[in-house]
Amino acid sequence: MADATHFGDRLDAAIREKKSVAVVGIDPTLAMLPPELARRAEEGQHGLYAALSDFCLGIVTAVSDLVPAVKPNIAFFEAFGMHGLSVYKSVCLTAADLGLVVIGDVKRGDIGSTAAAYAQGLLDAPKVHLRDLSNQSPERFQDLVGVLLGPHDALTLNPYMGSDSVQPFIDRGKPAGKGFFILVKTSNPSSKELQDLPLASGRTVAEHVAGLVSGWGADDIGDSGLSSVGAVVGATHPDELARYRELMPAAPFLVPGYGAQGGSAAGVVPAFHQDGTGAVVNASRSILQAWKNDGGGDDWQGAARRAAIAMNGDLREALSTAGKWGL
Amino acid sequence: MADATHFGDRLDAAIREKKSVAVVGIDPTLAMLPPELARRAEEGQHGLYAALSDFCLGIVTAVSDLVPAVKPNIAFFEAFGMHGLSVYKSVCLTAADLGLVVIGDVKRGDIGSTAAAYAQGLLDAPKVHLRDLSNQSPERFQDLVGVLLGPHDALTLNPYMGSDSVQPFIDRGKPAGKGFFILVKTSNPSSKELQDLPLASGRTVAEHVAGLVSGWGADDIGDSGLSSVGAVVGATHPDELARYRELMPAAPFLVPGYGAQGGSAAGVVPAFHQDGTGAVVNASRSILQAWKNDGGGDDWQGAARRAAIAMNGDLREALSTAGKWGL
Repeated sequence: MADATHFGDRLDAAIREKKSVAVVGIDPTLAMLPPELARRAEEGQHGLYAALSDFCLGIVTAVSDLVPAVKPNIAFFEAFGMHGLSVYKSVCLTAADLGLVVIGDVKRGDIGSTAAAYAQGLLDAPKVHLRDLSNQSPERFQDLVGVLLGPHDALTLNPYMGSDSVQPFIDRGKPAGKGFFILVKTSNPSSKELQDLPLASGRTVAEHVAGLVSGWGADDIGDSGLSSVGAVVGATHPDELARYRELMPAAPFLVPGYGAQGGSAAGVVPAFHQDGTGAVVNASRSILQAWKNDGGGDDWQGAARRAAIAMNGDLREALSTAGKWGL
Repeated sequence: MADATHFGDRLDAAIREKKSVAVVGIDPTLAMLPPELARRAEEGQHGLYAALSDFCLGIVTAVSDLVPAVKPNIAFFEAFGMHGLSVYKSVCLTAADLGLVVIGDVKRGDIGSTAAAYAQGLLDAPKVHLRDLSNQSPERFQDLVGVLLGPHDALTLNPYMGSDSVQPFIDRGKPAGKGFFILVKTSNPSSKELQDLPLASGRTVAEHVAGLVSGWGADDIGDSGLSSVGAVVGATHPDELARYRELMPAAPFLVPGYGAQGGSAAGVVPAFHQDGTGAVVNASRSILQAWKNDGGGDDWQGAARRAAIAMNGDLREALSTAGKWGL
């Protein structure tokens, strides 16, 4: 069953197929809508959700042949309430249909019984081909699409509550080939307030979490050498990336903070294995609102494409310069 | 404006009015449904959501005159997908309408711009009286009820990403009288893997977080002496509660882990101020499925009431024995 392929192997294959290590974050706000969609969003509730949906699906489609994965952050959809979450589901369905790896940026974390409930809601949505849905009865359509959030190939998780809060996701997700990116060192300025604290052991809190992550993923490493349990390590901490890579040799890295948050392509190089795989770098705002510096909105999809191509080139160049490009 | 009253003062007033420090966690699973509702849940999708809704609203109504607050955990609704989240909203609306303090157990945490999006989705739902809705047009109904999740009086938040991830919630919530409970020391066994680690400073990670929480709430302390920024400290760590109370003197404590998770009434006493206020103790499973040991399900609402009354008595006795009952 294609879906049950090991997550690390699927991510690795998608990176090699697209010859890209970029992930596009789908984090929409009203201020990002190009003029035509912004007008529509002002035409009452229906217009708002139609514009939000058109924008997100338009971006996903525009970049679908250029990058291995997309990462919708559920917060930006929850901000628009329950209909916003329906748009989130459409984004996941469409991205999966286009063959993209779907990383649900949900940052969940709770005690065991609650983590199991989250895992049910976020990991059990069926993956279907949209073309198979057009001739179905409404009942069968509902069965096929489901009401659960997703489909997701991977989720982001918060480690503050320890292994209880992560294991239920792994237990439910592993047989289905799902992956997880655990927050280790995040890209925001105040990540230092907790994550950088020195422990009595000599390690920092984030380094200790890196050890936990490595352990959680140790018995599920795919043929690619990548585990199904990965780590979020921000691009805004280039000096530390090599250290985290050392602590989590098999973990796929999800690296946020490139672009709008200030991280550079050269700075993310230490996250990668010697052959240029093992990590993906996320950009959201710089792709979604590329039209603001490129054409003014008449061709917002083209602008997003060009920004994704530029990001691919930027990362390729940085990796090549470091002798790490092998795609 | 009643809604903008300081959260600490509202919680304190609700505790004094009900003469109770108990919170009922609304964490439904199919296995908790009494036989009649379990049968209905098997009659296809509509039956499932009707049964889930009847159960949750029935529990909220049954305990509404006995406790100051309810705490629906969104995971258990997300487990049933988007329609499950509609039931979550019904629970919040009904509880608010019955005058209960609504603590949304959502455990959110993300970087600043994302935290602001979550805050919009979770804090902006309007609080309305359900009786005012019955004669409204569909459009006006929609305006009044909104599509956002909630209404919430307070939210639980995860501190792993530092103040960036908490401040946007406080900024948006403070003018509206909202409160926050930050995870400090959670009730699950593996909380020790991260939260109990000794820092080079001599404190543990959770003690350091307690210091952050105290700082985040320092400039928003109400007339009751309680801050709008509180802490989650588990009942499963009675020896540590006094230490956390010392570190966060003004924080309202939300204490999970009583009952099904093993925490005792005597064990939670150190969470309280000398007059028996300043903290609330949550129980979920022991109230929701009280019918299993009391009547077998014909009177599941009565069983929940009796379990809540017993819990109130249990906590009152433990606080009285310690000379801390002042309600």
